[in-house]
Amino acid sequence: MLVKGMPKFGSYAGQLLRVNLRTKAIKKEQLDKRIAKAYVGSKGLSAYILFNELKPGINPLGPENRLIFMTGPLTGTAAPMPNRFSVSAKSPLANSWCDSHCGGSWGPELKFAGYDGMIIEDRSAGPVYLNIVDDTVKILDANFVWGSDTFSTERVLKDRHCSDRMPRVACIGPPGERQALLASVISEVRAAGRGGMGAVMGSKNLKAIVVTGHKYKPKDFATNPEALSKAVKSCYTILSQGKVTGPAKGGRLSIYGTANIIGDMNTAGGWPTRNFQTGVFGDVSELKGETYADKLWIPRNAPGSRPCYSCPVLCAHVAIVREGKYAGTFTEGPEYEDIWSFGPQCGVSNREAIARADYLCDYYGLDSISVGNTIGFLMECYEKGLITSEDTGGIDLRFGNADAMVAAVDLAGRGFGKLGELASNGVRNAAQRIGKESDKFAIHSKGLELPAYCPRAAQGMGLNYAVGDRGACHLHAWTAGSEMMQPPSMDPKTTEGKAEAVRHLVNETNTVWDSTGVCRFHGWGVSPQDIFEMVIAATGFAYRDVSTLSEIGERIDNLTRAFNIREGLSKKDDTLPYRLLKEPLPEGPCKGQVVRLEEMLTEYYKLSGWDTEGKPTREKLTDLGLDFVARELYGKQA
Amino acid sequence: MLVKGMPKFGSYAGQLLRVNLRTKAIKKEQLDKRIAKAYVGSKGLSAYILFNELKPGINPLGPENRLIFMTGPLTGTAAPMPNRFSVSAKSPLANSWCDSHCGGSWGPELKFAGYDGMIIEDRSAGPVYLNIVDDTVKILDANFVWGSDTFSTERVLKDRHCSDRMPRVACIGPPGERQALLASVISEVRAAGRGGMGAVMGSKNLKAIVVTGHKYKPKDFATNPEALSKAVKSCYTILSQGKVTGPAKGGRLSIYGTANIIGDMNTAGGWPTRNFQTGVFGDVSELKGETYADKLWIPRNAPGSRPCYSCPVLCAHVAIVREGKYAGTFTEGPEYEDIWSFGPQCGVSNREAIARADYLCDYYGLDSISVGNTIGFLMECYEKGLITSEDTGGIDLRFGNADAMVAAVDLAGRGFGKLGELASNGVRNAAQRIGKESDKFAIHSKGLELPAYCPRAAQGMGLNYAVGDRGACHLHAWTAGSEMMQPPSMDPKTTEGKAEAVRHLVNETNTVWDSTGVCRFHGWGVSPQDIFEMVIAATGFAYRDVSTLSEIGERIDNLTRAFNIREGLSKKDDTLPYRLLKEPLPEGPCKGQVVRLEEMLTEYYKLSGWDTEGKPTREKLTDLGLDFVARELYGKQA
Repeated sequence: MLVKGMPKFGSYAGQLLRVNLRTKAIKKEQLDKRIAKAYVGSKGLSAYILFNELKPGINPLGPENRLIFMTGPLTGTAAPMPNRFSVSAKSPLANSWCDSHCGGSWGPELKFAGYDGMIIEDRSAGPVYLNIVDDTVKILDANFVWGSDTFSTERVLKDRHCSDRMPRVACIGPPGERQALLASVISEVRAAGRGGMGAVMGSKNLKAIVVTGHKYKPKDFATNPEALSKAVKSCYTILSQGKVTGPAKGGRLSIYGTANIIGDMNTAGGWPTRNFQTGVFGDVSELKGETYADKLWIPRNAPGSRPCYSCPVLCAHVAIVREGKYAGTFTEGPEYEDIWSFGPQCGVSNREAIARADYLCDYYGLDSISVGNTIGFLMECYEKGLITSEDTGGIDLRFGNADAMVAAVDLAGRGFGKLGELASNGVRNAAQRIGKESDKFAIHSKGLELPAYCPRAAQGMGLNYAVGDRGACHLHAWTAGSEMMQPPSMDPKTTEGKAEAVRHLVNETNTVWDSTGVCRFHGWGVSPQDIFEMVIAATGFAYRDVSTLSEIGERIDNLTRAFNIREGLSKKDDTLPYRLLKEPLPEGPCKGQVVRLEEMLTEYYKLSGWDTEGKPTREKLTDLGLDFVARELYGKQA
Repeated sequence: MLVKGMPKFGSYAGQLLRVNLRTKAIKKEQLDKRIAKAYVGSKGLSAYILFNELKPGINPLGPENRLIFMTGPLTGTAAPMPNRFSVSAKSPLANSWCDSHCGGSWGPELKFAGYDGMIIEDRSAGPVYLNIVDDTVKILDANFVWGSDTFSTERVLKDRHCSDRMPRVACIGPPGERQALLASVISEVRAAGRGGMGAVMGSKNLKAIVVTGHKYKPKDFATNPEALSKAVKSCYTILSQGKVTGPAKGGRLSIYGTANIIGDMNTAGGWPTRNFQTGVFGDVSELKGETYADKLWIPRNAPGSRPCYSCPVLCAHVAIVREGKYAGTFTEGPEYEDIWSFGPQCGVSNREAIARADYLCDYYGLDSISVGNTIGFLMECYEKGLITSEDTGGIDLRFGNADAMVAAVDLAGRGFGKLGELASNGVRNAAQRIGKESDKFAIHSKGLELPAYCPRAAQGMGLNYAVGDRGACHLHAWTAGSEMMQPPSMDPKTTEGKAEAVRHLVNETNTVWDSTGVCRFHGWGVSPQDIFEMVIAATGFAYRDVSTLSEIGERIDNLTRAFNIREGLSKKDDTLPYRLLKEPLPEGPCKGQVVRLEEMLTEYYKLSGWDTEGKPTREKLTDLGLDFVARELYGKQA
């Protein structure tokens, strides 16, 4: 794929960085234009590289795994929300493909420094970090920050490397260093949270990547500046006037953040409560975005909010706890998912405690969704007597005990005691250690903990969780928007049409959008056609029409599917825990429902052109231009 | 004192900033050369301004108080350790004069921006911060960081204001905002800790001061560059070759930080233990600088250490706790005083817990000496049943309970519950609220908590604590160096010569050195003559000889004394608590000793030219050129 010589092209920096942490070799490689055209960037490009470079069956925490940081062709451009980068590797949590995405300012800065992405190989003998200033890339000793929280790490590294421009930092905290499976990569309070990418970074002894870029500016990233400018303007108009994103129109996402949907999800009977025992939470009014906005958040356009780079939506809010037991807490969030994971999932309705738990996850570098999910699971184990106060170090880990929840997050960050170990390594690992059929209510798929939508109240979400390439991810195909937002546009109880809905979301928007480098929140108004216009103006690629993007989306999704199949995953892994398949919801509008997965799965495979075990057929792979994948899964054509 | 037009002169920026937070008036005032010559800078200049501008009897937390940030003529110059600035006001903790000093990089940056100092007047209606970029000074809304810890505040403000140079930040945390008496001003992990200057800043609704300076460079701050260069070189040579400061010579201060003296202090029987109940601590080997260096500190010259600006000594060390209950803690320290206050004072020998407590004090913005002292006091109250577990919120606040100590610091930061209130407002306040003769073992003088030297094992320290102008301060006259370092050069048990020793330290070095803007650690080798050479080369002042500096020292000390007398303080306040005066040390080389204060005090007053009530005589004031003070204390001459 990669050849020497590194000219920039279109909106790509045109160059990848390849760093071998064992040999200390630093190579700059040309980004192949044909590959960029076929896989776009971020998720797509990373999938292409990892499928080709990783051997199946490797230990995700071993030196053979590779860790890829990648931007897309819209990252750092004039597009709205052009701030995403992805972190990809084989996941140690799910033993599957993983791409984890992050906003902030690090991704654009990497492109300004002249790189579309970087591939981290092997493992350093001791702790190191990378400092990148344009063409100069250094591997530096990191012993002086090894063991440090992510905020101190950022502070010290910025102080060390600030020159004529504030550097941007992505790093891990202590959980990443000790390779806890729920460790995230943190970039200035934002997280590439899911799938244990922080643990992979830690396994490589890589503490941080510091970037300062002067080489390019946003205007440099366009093939047809006029066309891009026009497309960009159109998107800005849509976003600013949207009911969801435009504050002028009372845009809920802007004003109440991702937490704006809490009321709807609870009304739908699908706000998972006390480890998914039910889908209706009592004290929801105290936890809604409206209440956070009223009680804890600073104004969304205040300077402290530090929105992601070039974002007109400003979904991110900052909570400052000014009174009570958790006073002094300044946290960027909590988001919808955090409010749920430390709230209803743990039976907690203490707003300030939730904010503190959210803060601690960023501080230590932990995936807030998975940690909260795991603590909820452990609370159920504790209440059932499967673990005792001896295991918890004396903490009374009952549902609803807000202080116990915060203490558990703290221990998870520190990895202290049995509780700290359990809470930082996820529910599958915990259920294996605890035994006694606790796996029946260990709420994950493929090892990744479920987020804040109970699939018994949204059949489509059940299918989505089961087939996600990195496990139970709400972002794989968020049918919740149609099934749970009030009033729902799709019947949440039926399985009919759900396979099609999931397939559609995966192909038409999610997979390929995650490869462009823009935020998914374009989805609240901006159409695939609008994104298409920006992509072609930026890249200059002669894509036929918007359907080409769907083809690319499908190509990438089949590639990550093939990655997982090569790792030994199959239909048996496209599943959900016992509780969701067998225990009916006890109350609410979807009372009595379980996820009827099998019927959706059969249809989904069929629609996808996959066989009855969920393996893409040779024909499908060939149709998508994935001949090299077909050869690997099926051998050379007879 | 101040006239219009602001030319730079000598090593002074020549300009003071005066900011009225109520009217939002921002004025730039010429620094008067004659006043600068007479009072040098920092402490001296601030004393001159505050004596002239403050009315006696004001509420230190009222709008009438003024808060002065001031540098000295060596701040930001080529001198070694030219990084100090002072924060001065009437102290709300001691109701006396207060100057609190801080290193780091903020002071030099202020001079680079073109200011020797600034005077903050009155009180803003709502939270604000100042942003200073050279000539541009703005008062900005601080609601978006109000309530935030100091680290988040620094991070957010640096991100907001970083341009072509990293700004420097001094700020307060939640304790300062709520005007807790032990609140400090934090500048990038370093503290102007003592006397509640953070509370004064909070009372003005001033969250932070951000400074970026391009106007001057160190080379601009010299009248006679060649002479300065020569004097500077000489000081560097002394410091680098010194047994204490020079690592080449096994310099203990460099290698083991301020904690290098722990063994000596314990051997002297004066390491105050369990709220000064004794002066000998058992587990000292676990807490010595040598052990911190071995177990917790990163190498002193590692990049993460972030020494103060232009410091060749590097006494500051960074601890990273990598295992156990407090894993993930990255703290700059703990220093000698912190190790004591959270260690022996609380009966604790858990190194990691002490590091965590130190971290929390910086994080929240609390004076670590006073907070630890207060928690030790509360532990004694708890063990004696004067406060109960109801008062502590269920915390078992016994001596030696490391987790309880850390929890108490956390509560002090948050101001939560009765314990949080008590622990963040000092021992005098706590003893008043608790009553029951607890004031007998509330270890303070004039309201300021004692630091880590038991004066029953060093009579000179007893006198020093009693006569300190801001209360019980070890820096006022550190006779401990002669009385307690092993082997002692002065008999710690005698009172003979101690008045002279204290007077000498106050006049010859401490007071005037604290006005120059260099670190006191010059004292380990550098002589008053060496400092004199730097000062005259920098300022160009035609001081007669080094004795002129002593005269200035005495002038400033008399001025702050007069400030206190005008506030109603007198001999009755030059005292120590019952325990130190009446309860003999129970063990160690100074077993049986109490502080024999009266005999030293009488001599001290006499030596000072003060009357028997400790009031400077009219003659003394006039001799020192303090006629305006004499007029105020004695009325116009008959």
